[in-house]
Amino acid sequence: MSTGSERPLMPRHFEQELQELNERVLWMASLAERAVHDSVHAVLDSSESLAQTVLEQEGVINDMQMEIDDRVVRLIAQVQPMASDLRFLLAVARINNDLERIGDQAVNIAQSAIRVLRHVRVKPYVDLPRMSELAEGMVRDSIRALIDRNIELAQAVLIRDDQVDQLRNQIFRELLTYMMENSAVVFAAFELILVAKNLERIGDHATNISEDVIYIVQGRDVRHHATDRR
Amino acid sequence: MSTGSERPLMPRHFEQELQELNERVLWMASLAERAVHDSVHAVLDSSESLAQTVLEQEGVINDMQMEIDDRVVRLIAQVQPMASDLRFLLAVARINNDLERIGDQAVNIAQSAIRVLRHVRVKPYVDLPRMSELAEGMVRDSIRALIDRNIELAQAVLIRDDQVDQLRNQIFRELLTYMMENSAVVFAAFELILVAKNLERIGDHATNISEDVIYIVQGRDVRHHATDRR
Repeated sequence: MSTGSERPLMPRHFEQELQELNERVLWMASLAERAVHDSVHAVLDSSESLAQTVLEQEGVINDMQMEIDDRVVRLIAQVQPMASDLRFLLAVARINNDLERIGDQAVNIAQSAIRVLRHVRVKPYVDLPRMSELAEGMVRDSIRALIDRNIELAQAVLIRDDQVDQLRNQIFRELLTYMMENSAVVFAAFELILVAKNLERIGDHATNISEDVIYIVQGRDVRHHATDRR
Repeated sequence: MSTGSERPLMPRHFEQELQELNERVLWMASLAERAVHDSVHAVLDSSESLAQTVLEQEGVINDMQMEIDDRVVRLIAQVQPMASDLRFLLAVARINNDLERIGDQAVNIAQSAIRVLRHVRVKPYVDLPRMSELAEGMVRDSIRALIDRNIELAQAVLIRDDQVDQLRNQIFRELLTYMMENSAVVFAAFELILVAKNLERIGDHATNISEDVIYIVQGRDVRHHATDRR
């Protein structure tokens, strides 16, 4: 496979391969977002069938993670990319991992949805939908920030991570108070605590993705600066 | 910096750099293990000072994560390594990430240790030390498996992940039952539930590390096979 030329082998369509990789990550992100949305609505709407849908989709997300990882390793090995592209490809590998974990959290929520059906409904869940919308929006925006290389959008996600944590604390306090007042709701309320914890982790993963976007963009800025000085 | 030679620039001491990287990962792992151990003992021994030690060490672990990441990116960019070394370096980047997360979990446990001091002690924690020893052992063995490229040791870690999950379920059930029987312990018991959840995640990270070890070793086997056939 060696060309024997002075420069490392460079596929004709490297830009096209990067574009395809972008599209796969976008598709993976939309699957993960959908899984989060469905799993939370399985809890809110007491829908076991929606929870089952999420469980069935887990394999698709896992397969896509492996496919994206293979693309990244193959591109690095074949193209021996410059620092900027290398930085991007390594960040994609990490983002890919975060998206798969978001899918895992959705599976956890779906499992809680199924278990919570066995118990009495604790109360109308006002804060849980808010927390879920916040976390889903963070995932969506972190991916949009990646695609558009939008550092402001990425930074806006980081700020929202604190809001998610505040909402989580509020939900914890409320549910623990219910537990103290009425021991019959202990197990049901505990499942909702687990759901809130999973949403918190989904927010953490969106934060990781946004940090990687900032790393990619700032890395590029630094390099441009170095080139200018040369 | 270009040599103009047929092959990509290869630093004289690539093996030495790999060795140094191994040592840094080993050191990072020992810091993470220590943090887990100290944080759990802060809970068990009601020691606020031990909890503070863990909080103070967080920065050291974070700095080391960035240093290791920099080494990996620099090595890939400079050496343009073969598939086997590339596979190893990408796995090191992921393992580095897992170790940093283990440090984060230890910080969470230390924070629970401080909060739990405000409450009455729930009971002698029989299962928590067992779960902690199990999780710490998984971290230790996953790193030893990495250093020794020991696939059997890595697989033994994967098996223990189920034991951690069983122990977590047992601890959850017991603590929730306490909550039902005595509403005064709800907040204290909840902190211990959070500690158990953090230990579960530490086990998950050790599992990730072990899966990466298997990926490294099996990748090498496949490649050797391909070379033999050629």
